[in-house]
Formats: sequence, C-alpha cells, structure tokens
Amino acid sequence: MNGQYPSVLLEKAVSEFAKLPGVGRKTAMRLVLHLLRQDVAAVEAFGNAIITLKREVKYCKVCHNISDTDVCRICSNPQRDASVVCVVENIRDVMAVEATQQFRGLYHVLGGVISPMDGIGPSDLQIDSLVERVRAGGVKEVILALSTTMEGDTTNFYIYRKLEKFGVKLSVIARGISVGDELEYADEVTLGRSIVNRTPFNGTL
Amino acid sequence: MNGQYPSVLLEKAVSEFAKLPGVGRKTAMRLVLHLLRQDVAAVEAFGNAIITLKREVKYCKVCHNISDTDVCRICSNPQRDASVVCVVENIRDVMAVEATQQFRGLYHVLGGVISPMDGIGPSDLQIDSLVERVRAGGVKEVILALSTTMEGDTTNFYIYRKLEKFGVKLSVIARGISVGDELEYADEVTLGRSIVNRTPFNGTL
Repeated sequence: MNGQYPSVLLEKAVSEFAKLPGVGRKTAMRLVLHLLRQDVAAVEAFGNAIITLKREVKYCKVCHNISDTDVCRICSNPQRDASVVCVVENIRDVMAVEATQQFRGLYHVLGGVISPMDGIGPSDLQIDSLVERVRAGGVKEVILALSTTMEGDTTNFYIYRKLEKFGVKLSVIARGISVGDELEYADEVTLGRSIVNRTPFNGTL
Repeated sequence: MNGQYPSVLLEKAVSEFAKLPGVGRKTAMRLVLHLLRQDVAAVEAFGNAIITLKREVKYCKVCHNISDTDVCRICSNPQRDASVVCVVENIRDVMAVEATQQFRGLYHVLGGVISPMDGIGPSDLQIDSLVERVRAGGVKEVILALSTTMEGDTTNFYIYRKLEKFGVKLSVIARGISVGDELEYADEVTLGRSIVNRTPFNGTL
C-alpha cells in the first residue's frame, strides 16, 4: 500500500497518526479510515479531547503529577500520609501504584530517569524540587520506585547522594520473583537478589 | 494501571483514543502521554488534521474513492483507460492496486462486501452505481478485485448476476500461490485452484 494518496487531507491525517509511537503508515491509515466512518461529532470529540488536554493540562505544584488543579487530588487529600513520598518516573507509575491500594503517602513524579544515552541529565528531571520538599521538612521516608534498570539504578544513587545529608529514611521497592512466576524461568540476578533479600516468614504471605 | 485518573481531561482523551480499533486503555494512555510531550502546535496539528479531513472529505462522484475534488484524480485523468473498471472494497485496496503499477483503468469502490452476519446487504454498497456505470456504456471489462473470502465470493456472484445482461466482460483477479511462497505451506484450496487455473508458460513469468 505505497500508492499515492487519493486526497491531500487524507495524507495529512495519516501522516499525523503515523507520528504516534508504534504506529506505522498502514495502521495510521486504518485508524483514520475508522474515524472517517464515525459521524462529525465523534471525530470532533476525538480531535478536541487531545487539543483541550494539551491546552489546559496542569501539573501539581507539589508532586508534578498531571492535575486539573494547581495541587493534585492526592497532595491535597488530608487522609494521605504526607511524611512518606514515593518517587516515580511518570504519571503511569503513579496510577500503577495507586491501583495496588498499598500506598497511602504522597508521590513525586520525576518525569523520567537519568539517561545520558538519551541526553537526559538530572537537571531535566524534578530532582531539585524533591530535594526542596525534603529540605522543607515533614518528609520522614522517601521510597524510590523507579525502573529496575541501569538508568533507574543510576537515578536512585544520584537521589541518595542528594538526600543523605538530610537524614531522611530512604528505601527502594523490593526486587524479587514476580508473584505467579516459576523459579525455573527467573533470571539469575533477580533470583540471586530474592535470596539475599529474603523476608521473614511466619506462615502467611 | 487501573487506578483513578489524576485528571478528568486526561481520562477523556484516553477514553477517546481507546475507542480506536486495536487500542486498549494502556496503549491509549501511552499515545496521549506521547502527545502531551509535544508542543501545543503539534498537538493542534494532530487533532485538527482528522477534524478537517472529516469535515471536508469528498467522495468521487464516479468511483466513490476519497477525493479532494468532485471527480477524483484517477477518474479525471485522460491517460487512464475508462473502458476497464476494477471493483474493490475500499480505498486502501485502490492504493494497493495503484502501488502495483499494473493497472491503468479506473476503479469502483464498493465500500465493503455483502456480509449478512454484519448486516451489510447489497443496498449498503455502491453496487447500483456500478450497474449504472456499465449501463451508461463505455465500459468493456469489469475486474472484480474483492477479498477471496466467502463474503467476497458472494459479492462477486451478486455483481455477476446484475451485470451479465449487459454483455460486459467480467473477470476476477487470479487466485494462486503467493509469489515467494513454498508449495508445502500453501493451503489445499489455493494449491488446487492454482493447478486448475494454470497459465501458459513460455520461458518467462
């Protein structure tokens, strides 16, 4: 399907969709033709939803999560424990941790991890504002919940060096065998860590 | 990632993207966050491209292909052979046939195939207008280039019954082993047809 496009408008729409990550020109064409089959109101709702989001989106002044207000729902919730801050890469990670219902503290969204290969240094991330939050007092524990990759580890270490002087408790999320996984298929590093970091067992998990 | 969305606007945009075929909520979130990282102008270009297409799209009066003008570029091209009409399901098929550079005639876009299971009958397709084109004269051959499925075959037969009285030459695209395929892996029906419909061979293909 490399033929000339029958319409300039169609080609333009397909080109825009093909810029999306993981979307090639064939998929873009399929998506555009799907939208063309919808009525005008539905297509306008689609196009305007993303334009409105981009124009009106706010980021929480405290944790930098996406928000409709200056301070997000989580940071402004008096029921949450403001003394524990969970540091994550992006807002998807906030939603993932929230979905577990295991965390009642606040978040700090870095906006990524340190990755020299991608040209992302500490100053591109919300690290200074994290240090500021800790310096301001009231934070007792910082939980580092970054990707368990080289870049995540580098960022963990960088944050550790920035925060150690404040005497705040620092922890990282547990690394080990995924629940439901068989040992046989676990990689050696993960299995090794899960043995070193074994947890006391008193009959219940 | 089933947590509550941190922003109503974000949730709305993700919901719109998740309506696209083959796009789940996780992928929708990834696409929306990708667009959020672009600048406002890029996001507006994206949203407006599809809205403009939907509002201003035209369909060729002759062949029903998408077009920026009342009669499309192919139908209005005097270099094309107006006596041969290739019947296809949709505009992607027009582009696919055009990409082969093997066809210099005109097209007729049906808009689908007869599929009672999906509630698509002959009156939902551009079959009457095809009959009208043939009745008007000037068409010597109609090439049926529909999917080689039950629905495609049904549509082929329906069109055959509608056109046979006009004495126009009718043909279907060849069914056989795909170029580059090994016989071992071809299905029996295709292989059988390729033997029955063998073509004369004089040393070159």
